[in-house]
Amino acid sequence: MYKFSDMVTKMRSSEIRKLMKMAANPDVISFSGGMPNPDLFPVELMEKIYSEIPLQVKQAGFQYCPTAGYPPLIQSLKNYLSEKGLPLEGNDLIITTGAQQSINLVTRVFVDPGDRVISEFPCFIGAAATFNSYQADMTTIPIDNEGPDPVAFEQALSMQPIAKLVYLTPFFHNPAGIIYSRERKQTVIEILCQHKMVLLEDDPYGELYFDETDKELTVPIKALAGEQFPICYAGSFSKIIGPGLRLGWLLAPSEIIEKCELAKQSMDACSSTYSQVLAHHFMQSGAMPGYLEFLRAEYKERCQIMLDAMTKYMPDTCTWTIPRGGFYIWVTLQDHMDATEILTKSLQAGAVFVIGKAFDPENRRNNCLRLAFSHTPKEKIATGIRIVADAIKNLS
Amino acid sequence: MYKFSDMVTKMRSSEIRKLMKMAANPDVISFSGGMPNPDLFPVELMEKIYSEIPLQVKQAGFQYCPTAGYPPLIQSLKNYLSEKGLPLEGNDLIITTGAQQSINLVTRVFVDPGDRVISEFPCFIGAAATFNSYQADMTTIPIDNEGPDPVAFEQALSMQPIAKLVYLTPFFHNPAGIIYSRERKQTVIEILCQHKMVLLEDDPYGELYFDETDKELTVPIKALAGEQFPICYAGSFSKIIGPGLRLGWLLAPSEIIEKCELAKQSMDACSSTYSQVLAHHFMQSGAMPGYLEFLRAEYKERCQIMLDAMTKYMPDTCTWTIPRGGFYIWVTLQDHMDATEILTKSLQAGAVFVIGKAFDPENRRNNCLRLAFSHTPKEKIATGIRIVADAIKNLS
Repeated sequence: MYKFSDMVTKMRSSEIRKLMKMAANPDVISFSGGMPNPDLFPVELMEKIYSEIPLQVKQAGFQYCPTAGYPPLIQSLKNYLSEKGLPLEGNDLIITTGAQQSINLVTRVFVDPGDRVISEFPCFIGAAATFNSYQADMTTIPIDNEGPDPVAFEQALSMQPIAKLVYLTPFFHNPAGIIYSRERKQTVIEILCQHKMVLLEDDPYGELYFDETDKELTVPIKALAGEQFPICYAGSFSKIIGPGLRLGWLLAPSEIIEKCELAKQSMDACSSTYSQVLAHHFMQSGAMPGYLEFLRAEYKERCQIMLDAMTKYMPDTCTWTIPRGGFYIWVTLQDHMDATEILTKSLQAGAVFVIGKAFDPENRRNNCLRLAFSHTPKEKIATGIRIVADAIKNLS
Repeated sequence: MYKFSDMVTKMRSSEIRKLMKMAANPDVISFSGGMPNPDLFPVELMEKIYSEIPLQVKQAGFQYCPTAGYPPLIQSLKNYLSEKGLPLEGNDLIITTGAQQSINLVTRVFVDPGDRVISEFPCFIGAAATFNSYQADMTTIPIDNEGPDPVAFEQALSMQPIAKLVYLTPFFHNPAGIIYSRERKQTVIEILCQHKMVLLEDDPYGELYFDETDKELTVPIKALAGEQFPICYAGSFSKIIGPGLRLGWLLAPSEIIEKCELAKQSMDACSSTYSQVLAHHFMQSGAMPGYLEFLRAEYKERCQIMLDAMTKYMPDTCTWTIPRGGFYIWVTLQDHMDATEILTKSLQAGAVFVIGKAFDPENRRNNCLRLAFSHTPKEKIATGIRIVADAIKNLS
């Protein structure tokens, strides 16, 4: 009676999504989804800010807005990004329905089926799903505590046919939890300069550094590299206000934004104007710096609780990253171990995480696991880590 | 330095979008965009409803929700659609980022480059842009005051290669303004039954009938045709709460929704939870029936003001549809006339509308124009119509 399109026939479901369904049981301690704890959302603050805006602006929130975004929010974001050192000249900004849409748009604009895309291994699952949905041919570069392996990176960029897109998440990587070192970031820029490839720089977590001294490490590649090669810089309100607003942004050379806008127009016409009005007035109110400070302290504390529990319970046979910001700890098991088996045991005992394979665009390597400390109630973190640790020990 | 993907290279910009930019001048009387008048939005009502919901629900509005939608809203919508006579069994519902995304998802799920899609002529511009973006091969069927021409419809469905998708908007058509007659709808169903093609039934305006006696005409094809062929039914909150929430829905056979959900996951992960919480509690509050009655009366009045002005000012050489609901009047000029020339004159004199060519998926025929009565201040409608009429007379 009907036949699905080639594109859709080849899509695969996200591992995270299946797991999220299992993890819905409230008795299970969850380290899985990469979301904030609900208690951290600025609910009352936002309600107060909304109540004070004029009727005409509230009405605008119910209306369509331009595909590129609600103009006052575009302006607020330009100011904010300019202060972060990002170049506005020659670039344009588009508001998207979450950074997920920014990734989708850039991929749509550059990638035809069979085109090569280079990403880190491990790789953000939502990006990997997008590249897969456009039938990209993936090449991955391993990352260590300082960033991508320079030799593998150089090799990947030299491969024929030449890649259409390089996707990197330099700041508090999801799932690896690391931030690029100053030196490695410079090396990455130099390699990209030689090859002049399009870079999609994904930065949803950059604001969530735990220590003020690390702030300088969060300067985007786009702020440092200038116009030596085309950079599409993606950001999001998901981790700094709330994912429920579904708002991200993309700063990129004007010609690229023009194509993204065209693609977005037939995807969803525009992103929620209501959310955009909220985000704009939140920024305008001056509440954001204080709210970010609160978040940084909260996540730092949650991370420390998890690290302490890991030191206490985890077997010597596994290693993990020590985050300086963001949401995640990435655990590496012995080579022969399979994270799915550990997850099965762990779920039975009442704790859930995401298996490493989910973050492998090639869907193979599975001796790692991701622990999110962002949303678990603090008093449950140690108990949950003990369950995961026991599952690992039982299978070692 | 880079090369755009084939898909994007072939996209064309929407005529409406360009016009919207021109029409931004507040001195110009606008009959262009298909949006509600800002004064009609339930701003205060919504604020009151929001203020009364529990903190936990407000927090949920800031959080991710499942890709398919915020579960309480899915349930409210199922109840609502069931009351409209739509079949839930064997079907699933997904919440989308506006009906535009519903159209995009269904197209993505079925249409590969070069596949045939059948639509009405004229056709909703956002749908035409989507089909174009997936490189569909378009076949259009002319519609008259009762619906699609049955002979042309039968011919289009018999063409080889067989179409992958049929797109119809039976209720208060955008831009044609008509509603299918009972008999024609039956004929359309019979033809579709023979060919078993996938139908995408787009119904954003069905609730906006001007007279209670016409309510029975708004029964969806999906409610009448049962499971004789696969029907994807798309609806939206854009015209019954506000487009700024960016919320639509899609009711379709479960297997199709499963694929749409997979495609949506890498497009934007989920639609704004904040908007979904608002929409759910708006429905739950019991305010919707009264608000819809208010809207019906408002649009009926605006339409009548426009029709009266048209009778008074328009030349005998053009004809127009008499809407029984919705937002639009569709004007047909003499064959040799060009709507773009009329628009140029009309804009100089201070009134704007959308040219017919924008609604032709083949981007050719241009002897029609669309007048929206939905958002123009009532006291300006007659003046604006006189300007448009003069522009037509000058070029006759």
